[in-house]
Amino acid sequence: MGIQKIQAAIIGGTGYTGIELIRLLSLHPNIQPIFIISREQCGKKLYEVHPFLSGMPYAETIFSPLDHKAIGKTCDVAFLAVPHGTGMEIAPQLLEQGTKVIDLSADFRLNNPMTYSQWYHLEHNASHLLSEAVYGIPELNEEFIKRANIVANPGCYPTSIILGLYPAIKHGLIKFENIIIDSKSGTSGAGRNTSTSSLLFCEIQNSFKAYNIGIHRHTPEIEQELSYIAKQPITVTFSPHLLPTTRGILSTIYTQLALPISQDEVYRLYTNTWKDQPWIRIVPSSKLPETRNVCGTMFCDIGLVVDIRTQRLIIISAIDNLCRGASGQAIANANLMFNLPMTTGLIFCPLLP
Amino acid sequence: MGIQKIQAAIIGGTGYTGIELIRLLSLHPNIQPIFIISREQCGKKLYEVHPFLSGMPYAETIFSPLDHKAIGKTCDVAFLAVPHGTGMEIAPQLLEQGTKVIDLSADFRLNNPMTYSQWYHLEHNASHLLSEAVYGIPELNEEFIKRANIVANPGCYPTSIILGLYPAIKHGLIKFENIIIDSKSGTSGAGRNTSTSSLLFCEIQNSFKAYNIGIHRHTPEIEQELSYIAKQPITVTFSPHLLPTTRGILSTIYTQLALPISQDEVYRLYTNTWKDQPWIRIVPSSKLPETRNVCGTMFCDIGLVVDIRTQRLIIISAIDNLCRGASGQAIANANLMFNLPMTTGLIFCPLLP
Amino acid sequence: MGIQKIQAAIIGGTGYTGIELIRLLSLHPNIQPIFIISREQCGKKLYEVHPFLSGMPYAETIFSPLDHKAIGKTCDVAFLAVPHGTGMEIAPQLLEQGTKVIDLSADFRLNNPMTYSQWYHLEHNASHLLSEAVYGIPELNEEFIKRANIVANPGCYPTSIILGLYPAIKHGLIKFENIIIDSKSGTSGAGRNTSTSSLLFCEIQNSFKAYNIGIHRHTPEIEQELSYIAKQPITVTFSPHLLPTTRGILSTIYTQLALPISQDEVYRLYTNTWKDQPWIRIVPSSKLPETRNVCGTMFCDIGLVVDIRTQRLIIISAIDNLCRGASGQAIANANLMFNLPMTTGLIFCPLLP
Amino acid sequence: MGIQKIQAAIIGGTGYTGIELIRLLSLHPNIQPIFIISREQCGKKLYEVHPFLSGMPYAETIFSPLDHKAIGKTCDVAFLAVPHGTGMEIAPQLLEQGTKVIDLSADFRLNNPMTYSQWYHLEHNASHLLSEAVYGIPELNEEFIKRANIVANPGCYPTSIILGLYPAIKHGLIKFENIIIDSKSGTSGAGRNTSTSSLLFCEIQNSFKAYNIGIHRHTPEIEQELSYIAKQPITVTFSPHLLPTTRGILSTIYTQLALPISQDEVYRLYTNTWKDQPWIRIVPSSKLPETRNVCGTMFCDIGLVVDIRTQRLIIISAIDNLCRGASGQAIANANLMFNLPMTTGLIFCPLLP
Repeated sequence: MGIQKIQAAIIGGTGYTGIELIRLLSLHPNIQPIFIISREQCGKKLYEVHPFLSGMPYAETIFSPLDHKAIGKTCDVAFLAVPHGTGMEIAPQLLEQGTKVIDLSADFRLNNPMTYSQWYHLEHNASHLLSEAVYGIPELNEEFIKRANIVANPGCYPTSIILGLYPAIKHGLIKFENIIIDSKSGTSGAGRNTSTSSLLFCEIQNSFKAYNIGIHRHTPEIEQELSYIAKQPITVTFSPHLLPTTRGILSTIYTQLALPISQDEVYRLYTNTWKDQPWIRIVPSSKLPETRNVCGTMFCDIGLVVDIRTQRLIIISAIDNLCRGASGQAIANANLMFNLPMTTGLIFCPLLP
Repeated sequence: MGIQKIQAAIIGGTGYTGIELIRLLSLHPNIQPIFIISREQCGKKLYEVHPFLSGMPYAETIFSPLDHKAIGKTCDVAFLAVPHGTGMEIAPQLLEQGTKVIDLSADFRLNNPMTYSQWYHLEHNASHLLSEAVYGIPELNEEFIKRANIVANPGCYPTSIILGLYPAIKHGLIKFENIIIDSKSGTSGAGRNTSTSSLLFCEIQNSFKAYNIGIHRHTPEIEQELSYIAKQPITVTFSPHLLPTTRGILSTIYTQLALPISQDEVYRLYTNTWKDQPWIRIVPSSKLPETRNVCGTMFCDIGLVVDIRTQRLIIISAIDNLCRGASGQAIANANLMFNLPMTTGLIFCPLLP
Repeated sequence: MGIQKIQAAIIGGTGYTGIELIRLLSLHPNIQPIFIISREQCGKKLYEVHPFLSGMPYAETIFSPLDHKAIGKTCDVAFLAVPHGTGMEIAPQLLEQGTKVIDLSADFRLNNPMTYSQWYHLEHNASHLLSEAVYGIPELNEEFIKRANIVANPGCYPTSIILGLYPAIKHGLIKFENIIIDSKSGTSGAGRNTSTSSLLFCEIQNSFKAYNIGIHRHTPEIEQELSYIAKQPITVTFSPHLLPTTRGILSTIYTQLALPISQDEVYRLYTNTWKDQPWIRIVPSSKLPETRNVCGTMFCDIGLVVDIRTQRLIIISAIDNLCRGASGQAIANANLMFNLPMTTGLIFCPLLP
Repeated sequence: MGIQKIQAAIIGGTGYTGIELIRLLSLHPNIQPIFIISREQCGKKLYEVHPFLSGMPYAETIFSPLDHKAIGKTCDVAFLAVPHGTGMEIAPQLLEQGTKVIDLSADFRLNNPMTYSQWYHLEHNASHLLSEAVYGIPELNEEFIKRANIVANPGCYPTSIILGLYPAIKHGLIKFENIIIDSKSGTSGAGRNTSTSSLLFCEIQNSFKAYNIGIHRHTPEIEQELSYIAKQPITVTFSPHLLPTTRGILSTIYTQLALPISQDEVYRLYTNTWKDQPWIRIVPSSKLPETRNVCGTMFCDIGLVVDIRTQRLIIISAIDNLCRGASGQAIANANLMFNLPMTTGLIFCPLLP
């Protein structure tokens, strides 16, 4: 019996999440990108647009225009590496033809279309699919993902935050009010947008800033998922910041302990909760996560500090925003949807230094 | 009548705060560094060790060994750009000879020598001077600084935090419990230490991490000064992080509103509180501070966000850690101590881009 | 008698050279920007667009549209911080009204309009002004600049290269054939262009590349000026590269010695040639220039290596591309044109670290 | 039949080349590091010193002291990731016991022990091995490497330069005099040295400099290997520079054409020469190499510019200094020495962005 081959389409092959999908699938043993879609680069070969891919398996692939029928006929799965608003345009047509969908945009993450409208300032025009879309964190929703036809691939910030808070909420270690999340992201998280000067090298390098405090669109996504875990509504304060790095998110999460507990006990509980998960690493007590330690991988490194003076548990969670926080997680979800081991093609050593 | 000339010693001329003192005094109209002390570079000319200073006024100055008597005889003021533990060794001898002291180390910042011992793991051996040492934030303690013989130059993190919180505490806008401070500093704040590999370019660039959460030595200093302002004890959670930038601190400060108040009202109150202060800039509501906007200057940029959903006031405060957070502030204190206008030699335009 | 006040217009106040002009004039004692022109930001206040300028002298200035008559009536001098092609549109109208012009674009640098057309792919439509435009390197053309109505402000690469080669060519140290120039520039030299993704942080950071080898538009400018110095035609190989830094150019220049000479003798000759020039620093033999040593200043640091094995003189020249290589040099030229000391408002200490 | 397992020792597991060896072997299907040697970290587990390796195959390996006998008994091959001077101390003892040696230090690269002494200021005390040590560039010396017991792993700069020049020299395209090489390296090439401040983040970031022009120790290595290819002595001018990046070398090589030839013809000749080599990518004429395109891989990207004005061929060659320029190349050599396909465990996609 031969190796199972899954045919895939990547819709949006020039943004950073699209590039990361191509990078990761280049050496994936089972999933092959048959179509790589780009309006602007249509007709060019992959290596002409992305010279770093020369000599790699799909270097000669030609960027195609979006042709739903062709994808529907050929592809088992489509990765939508598109801006919000576009995911919900494309997904229904592909699903109808039997192509499974992994949407990297935000369109299917929020269950309530009203919440979507409120935060994204856009009517949801595929809200009938919201109930079947599975929120794709493989460690939490494995069984649902395996049976899903459409996966809402999580946001990068929410991924780091949910993985960091899950054991504390699940086990009632912390109070559910007053959770404060101070996240810092590398610049690739802002995409490859050239409409303003704000992402130019000279505007980012050697600087640091907060942005969209209290109004970032990942806020309702974070609250929705934490509320599911808590089984009661959770409201958070979420403050994103922009790092002068390319990759990496580090979230520092401030919580109040619900019970007296030592740092060692928290460490043990976390280690135990995630003990069967190959990508979650609880950092030993004397150390703290660094974004470089997860660069280019699916790892989520979690550090834990009990501050006895203030009775707080401070959780530090680090991921690679492009790999774990987007395209790598999308491939892990695809693995599950096609009954491959979750880690297929996704075991890497971080690139350090 | 000629220009007033103040003769100064810089003790510690090879670390980053020492270098910054030399840089700033190079064009100061009144304060002249007569002695620049360095044990390891003793005998060399300034420009040989710091080639960027070639052609500047003190390029030919020769690094000297520490000679208390010579300094006492010649200098009106000494800047101690030394590690903690060394400030308290040197200060008493200089003060006895009538040389005023501005100590950039932590040795005279904490009023209680027990607190000092507890956080710095060191006996304080000049505790008799603690009561006369003035905590040198010029906007807050101008009159005391003018009369001081010894100024404890504030830590970089505390400077950004105290300036950011002062109006909110002073005017009772916020609850005094549950203040959480998430600070991020450029790497120059860690000094020029070569004993470990952790500050090497390849360990810092393109990465980000938290460190010393809940145990950073600036914690008691922050609490002491905030408590003075509040006139009641304040305990904070303080989490420092290391940025892959050279200069710049940005502190994101989470507080709970004590009364219902709009963002505009907070903005007005802050603007009003600091209205006579040339270095404090309240950033308009739609914007947030960036560390590059203060690079190389004394500015403290403050952003304010009222998060109605959680009834929080989030304060973002940005300074240059080396200039405002150390050497520039030391010179502002010297200006005051010698009856010069506070801003003498300290009006710069940020270097941007 | 009061201080001489020179009224200036900055045409193009949002690009990096325009921003640098504003930064430098903010504290210039004699030259005041009366008009700051920007089509796109027209009507906004300076600090709204450039928040780093809040609290500085011209923060409240309102960006105006280009009005030749108003400038002609009010301004002694106009700085054209515009792309090539625009300089020659604007300059004639201002000159007619008696406003002196310092053009930071490339339009008046090449004496031969045919050469201009060939390299810039554009007809020159103000070629009658080429003969009176003075090439503005203050150390070389001081007397001409003083009498000029229009100054062609040199390119950033040519500035570093001409200053580095001048003594060697002038004194016949080197052969005039086979000069090879390998230059590396910080990214601010590429401007604030948002039309492609190539200047985004994530495309530049942690990478390095050559570009436009053999076809860069500064090539004829370099050759023209070196040929003047040599009094015979000089052809060079010029290879620019893009550094992941914001500021700084370092040019490594490979020449063949025309006579046997030691490194010390070359050092002495260079030191002697530039001995009255405050901004040119010949780096001692055992050291080499670094771009950080000139950051934010007018300094040009020159290093000299005689490679006995190959009978070459290798010259290394470092400048700040925005200050020395553009806006600072423009202001130095303005100083000379209005009989101010060349260094007025232009003595800074490099920002280091 | 099972998979061939090769047992290896890594001598020097804390420097950057040692770390890179561990990173690469972590997922190598055939070569297993049995011993990882470190004097200073002896007794600690790998993940305690290198937390990024947690969860990877050898995370629990304990750093051992150097025990020649144990290595000799157990290991098929030893990688010496040590400073020069140490390679020649260790190699003979291991070879005697039948362990093959791949020396990443410079000790066995120069055939002439006198040249070694002259450039490294050290007597060679294992010169009897020089004649059997094979210079390990797999594309050039495959057959010799396969039969070698000791491989001298090439320097990072020489690797980029030799691969770039090989076709031009081999086919007599260029004159053999007057080759000028201007190389720029990321900071990881300088090692993990903490004895001076010159590699600290704040000294490197946002700056650029040349160093050791004309006296860099890779010069005789470059000349030796180019002379072999040319079959006549070649002398070069070699100027290294330090980039504010972690990884990546880009060498810009200036040569004079020996015959009239077009850029297309050169491109064809290069493509043809390297047509069977999976890691050498000739960049199409309109593009030039960038270091990010080879990050973390064995690729060598080569760009070619014929400058008709000066009759020069300019060759631009980019590699990852740690992977291709050191540890990856060492593993490729090991693959050949044990009859594995050269690319075993070494096919990666560059990490971009």
